Amino acid sequence: MIRIAVLGAGRIGRIHGRNAASHPDARLVAVADPHAPAAQDLAAATGAEVASLDEIVERSDVDAILICTPTTTHADLIERGARAGKAVFCEKPVDLSSARIETCLATVEKTGTPLMIGFNRRFDPNFAALRRRLADGEVGEVELVTILSRDPGPPPVSYIATSGGLFRDMMIHDLDMARFLLLGDEPVEVHAVGSSLVDPAIGQAGDVDTAAVMLKTAKGRIVQISNSRRATYGYDQRIEVHGSRGMIRAGNIHRTTVEVATASGITADPVQDFFLERYAEAYREELATFLNAIRDGKPCNPTGRDGLMAQRLADAATESAQSGKPVRL
Amino acid sequence: MIRIAVLGAGRIGRIHGRNAASHPDARLVAVADPHAPAAQDLAAATGAEVASLDEIVERSDVDAILICTPTTTHADLIERGARAGKAVFCEKPVDLSSARIETCLATVEKTGTPLMIGFNRRFDPNFAALRRRLADGEVGEVELVTILSRDPGPPPVSYIATSGGLFRDMMIHDLDMARFLLLGDEPVEVHAVGSSLVDPAIGQAGDVDTAAVMLKTAKGRIVQISNSRRATYGYDQRIEVHGSRGMIRAGNIHRTTVEVATASGITADPVQDFFLERYAEAYREELATFLNAIRDGKPCNPTGRDGLMAQRLADAATESAQSGKPVRL
Amino acid sequence: MIRIAVLGAGRIGRIHGRNAASHPDARLVAVADPHAPAAQDLAAATGAEVASLDEIVERSDVDAILICTPTTTHADLIERGARAGKAVFCEKPVDLSSARIETCLATVEKTGTPLMIGFNRRFDPNFAALRRRLADGEVGEVELVTILSRDPGPPPVSYIATSGGLFRDMMIHDLDMARFLLLGDEPVEVHAVGSSLVDPAIGQAGDVDTAAVMLKTAKGRIVQISNSRRATYGYDQRIEVHGSRGMIRAGNIHRTTVEVATASGITADPVQDFFLERYAEAYREELATFLNAIRDGKPCNPTGRDGLMAQRLADAATESAQSGKPVRL
Amino acid sequence: MIRIAVLGAGRIGRIHGRNAASHPDARLVAVADPHAPAAQDLAAATGAEVASLDEIVERSDVDAILICTPTTTHADLIERGARAGKAVFCEKPVDLSSARIETCLATVEKTGTPLMIGFNRRFDPNFAALRRRLADGEVGEVELVTILSRDPGPPPVSYIATSGGLFRDMMIHDLDMARFLLLGDEPVEVHAVGSSLVDPAIGQAGDVDTAAVMLKTAKGRIVQISNSRRATYGYDQRIEVHGSRGMIRAGNIHRTTVEVATASGITADPVQDFFLERYAEAYREELATFLNAIRDGKPCNPTGRDGLMAQRLADAATESAQSGKPVRL
Repeated sequence: MIRIAVLGAGRIGRIHGRNAASHPDARLVAVADPHAPAAQDLAAATGAEVASLDEIVERSDVDAILICTPTTTHADLIERGARAGKAVFCEKPVDLSSARIETCLATVEKTGTPLMIGFNRRFDPNFAALRRRLADGEVGEVELVTILSRDPGPPPVSYIATSGGLFRDMMIHDLDMARFLLLGDEPVEVHAVGSSLVDPAIGQAGDVDTAAVMLKTAKGRIVQISNSRRATYGYDQRIEVHGSRGMIRAGNIHRTTVEVATASGITADPVQDFFLERYAEAYREELATFLNAIRDGKPCNPTGRDGLMAQRLADAATESAQSGKPVRL
Repeated sequence: MIRIAVLGAGRIGRIHGRNAASHPDARLVAVADPHAPAAQDLAAATGAEVASLDEIVERSDVDAILICTPTTTHADLIERGARAGKAVFCEKPVDLSSARIETCLATVEKTGTPLMIGFNRRFDPNFAALRRRLADGEVGEVELVTILSRDPGPPPVSYIATSGGLFRDMMIHDLDMARFLLLGDEPVEVHAVGSSLVDPAIGQAGDVDTAAVMLKTAKGRIVQISNSRRATYGYDQRIEVHGSRGMIRAGNIHRTTVEVATASGITADPVQDFFLERYAEAYREELATFLNAIRDGKPCNPTGRDGLMAQRLADAATESAQSGKPVRL
Repeated sequence: MIRIAVLGAGRIGRIHGRNAASHPDARLVAVADPHAPAAQDLAAATGAEVASLDEIVERSDVDAILICTPTTTHADLIERGARAGKAVFCEKPVDLSSARIETCLATVEKTGTPLMIGFNRRFDPNFAALRRRLADGEVGEVELVTILSRDPGPPPVSYIATSGGLFRDMMIHDLDMARFLLLGDEPVEVHAVGSSLVDPAIGQAGDVDTAAVMLKTAKGRIVQISNSRRATYGYDQRIEVHGSRGMIRAGNIHRTTVEVATASGITADPVQDFFLERYAEAYREELATFLNAIRDGKPCNPTGRDGLMAQRLADAATESAQSGKPVRL
Repeated sequence: MIRIAVLGAGRIGRIHGRNAASHPDARLVAVADPHAPAAQDLAAATGAEVASLDEIVERSDVDAILICTPTTTHADLIERGARAGKAVFCEKPVDLSSARIETCLATVEKTGTPLMIGFNRRFDPNFAALRRRLADGEVGEVELVTILSRDPGPPPVSYIATSGGLFRDMMIHDLDMARFLLLGDEPVEVHAVGSSLVDPAIGQAGDVDTAAVMLKTAKGRIVQISNSRRATYGYDQRIEVHGSRGMIRAGNIHRTTVEVATASGITADPVQDFFLERYAEAYREELATFLNAIRDGKPCNPTGRDGLMAQRLADAATESAQSGKPVRL
């Protein structure tokens, strides 16, 4: 039985906490959150205790920690957890600074502790199936990857300021997905453009809300990613991979399968528009993967290095969009 | 807190038992099953006790029972539960004999106990949304209802013999769905045809495996239903309603959203093929509806009478297929 | 070079006339229509002469006639054409009376002239491809056929009165399609129901506007057909065949491939709603098939007997809907 | 009656020649092609005469010329036609050199003759409907344009050498489409990447077969285009525009509407794979637009300047892909 503690009982902490509590080989033993009611609620719902963050890191009856705190605390907590000999699952990103990620990963490496980074989309059953079939060669060699990702609406402008910018906050998921789909062939060149078209306040805060990236890999493969902070029809998440023997894609999930036909046309439901609903199965599968790896003594995946590589791509995209020039990695 | 006992810890009993256990206003207190390990497993998983069926009906700390036992026991258990003052949820059908259903419902009526029959498909989010929009008049007056329902594969021939036949065992769901979609306009005429095309052993057992029904309602609306005991591409469950102002339909759920394009064409996944997966949400919603109705002192729906009406339609279809003549109700 | 004359220069006569004129191995030599401007227009557009119907039947420089006149004249004209040694293409139906069709076909048989009946849908590229793949065994043995056919709007009530009724006027196409898809296994039992739901005036004229039919074949296969005289979203023409190894279907053609996604959902265009547009390719292919058969001395298909069989099914459906009893053939 | 001559009776000349011949207000009077049989065949099929290119330019009974000759001759023929006072329709591109296009357009401008460039895709009914609805504001302000364009297979390597390269030969269509969809907001920045992944011989010939472009407009809108010289599933031509109020897209046309469901999934037909079939209606509509504009004395569209702008974008993309740096316009 793996004994788990969750650090941070906000929206994503509650998801991981509940998923840990319902895993057959795990038990949620402790919950920490500076906001006491949040910690108490999650503890009550899962049979865990409330504890302070410091207590948790010390406790010998905690085998693994789930870091669901604000981004600025991630790297420190990973290091503390690693030094305390705990397996660590950390929400993306490890840090907004790639340099900080590198020192953090060096510490983790020394301790030899398992570390998994929370790129949840890799565990979406649709994207995971696509990746599996791609790796099986069903469409031949990968040539062109197209990723479209649009949020239902922008976050508060106050959040934008501390987010690291769209490329590090939002597109990082797509950059990781690109690496996931390239099957080991790493991007070496990043072109990015960005604009503030959705909300001028985002532009005034120094960020963009509409952006596109082009990646070229060592082997000449090409990736196109586009992002928008707003989609009126739901949370739009699509992937398409064009290969030498065919094309494979994964699309959106509509709210229901209902369609209505009238003189105006045939109308399907909007797509699911809340990321916690859209990726509910992905979060379950992600945590199960982490816990199963610990239980079985197998390597965790995506690794800290995956976190670093995605961050470097996001850094390069940020730089490219600002300078107007491509960045080579 | 509603105290629940589940009678029968087989496949469907486990579903309802777990759903009851996880409902915020309910507690699963007891599980009965003549097969002890089945009862013990479910009890262990939900924190309930194992008890005998007789004990449960007597116990004063049980507010509601979920009848998930073999069909032949349903009517008796409903009556016992009703006389003991318990709310009753019973899997369809109440009984294979409409006459027996009538006496059972008369007993229930005398006791005034709530009784809900388990027509799970009414609670599927897709079909429920379709019905809601139909009732809202989105496509005008209902004129033609088309229901296609195909199982992935036939049940064992040994089961066929005691099933009451395809119309009572399988099509009864579609007959109930037809009534659900007709918004109160009852069928008055039933034409049925059936054949044994899937497996000759089913024909030798006196049943059919491929069948179609045409219903005409009091107001002249028309329903077409077809059933097959085998579909190579999954569990096929489709509804289409043609109305005076448009058409509304609900389709199948594919295993994933992945599509592959090659020289052979563009291929989507087969549809989900196990009814417990296909209707997982429907079962949750169904039990929540039952428990909420009891909690709030509201009427349960679908009612015992809905169970009776579906059974009468299934009887009529069985008779029509055998005689080659339509049956008027 | 096959020399063609078209009898009747109305809507469908113009289609066939122009298709004949543009066939590489045919020449349209004459056009007859009691309404002189109609004949003149078509003649001018195709380089043909205007002639009287009687002249055409006598002329030795006419190898084949296309009968596009009102239904009541079909059987007589077929007989006259056959006696004059001309190949005959006749729009469906041969006659509203099956008895008259039989005498007509007896005459044709005596003369040995080629006769082809205009069931245009068999030549729709989508339905033809479906039939070809069905015949190739791609989905195994046919078990259940579902045909949905809905007109964009009802014809004038004045037309209804002389149309022979919905089953003979509209559903006859679907009955022929059913036979086409059954690959030789003939229907032996017809159940029909009909209602007047679209327009009460149609009911007052003694006809129905919404109808369904169930057919059972000699081998136990089942067909379900439904018709409505109104569909707000276009001319709805769908076929689905369920077989022992899978399912094959052919759907509607949308006006364009454009889809719009907004908060209301994802909306595709309505389907094509004019039968001459929907079946433009079918008409071309149909006439090419007739002309190629004549050129090559091969049998024409669909035959006069196909016309008779469809009419008998339509008669049986009409009788069944009126009597409330199935009709055996 | 507009008197037309077609210069070049190859594949595309035959299309335009036949479309001109069947336009109600036009007559094809002459056909020129150095390959005599090609000219004779088209002349015979349309009732035109065979003439030499020089004769045609001199003839006073020719109102308009359709230039369907090899690219290297386009600019000269446009100038000769313009000086001779003829309306000119010219296949894209005007020339592979933007400088040459500029001098050519200057000549055309002096003569005041109508000139239309053959960007056929603008006239595809699907793309034209999308553009119309976009211009009507159905999805609000344009923010992100995604264009995917994949040929069924690469042209012969011998052709590649003289084609001007993928960006000028293939992507020019998509670059024009991007401008068409941007409704007047011109691209100011072009990032391009390209690789030879389909066939190494293409790379050896100095070209790419897989490429992507990112455009940024004066107003900050973003366009992503990707091209491949090979698609196993047909000629893939898709457009998607994301706007402030929704998304609009136009997809591929499948060979038929048939779908087959088996244990392997539900398979739709490959998409149409020959450009002359895919764009048959576009070519008809394009020529009708040219002829109607001449008949009515209205401006022709797309203009010579559209040809120039697309060429400049293609030049910029070529330069960007070679230098690895974005090009500003």
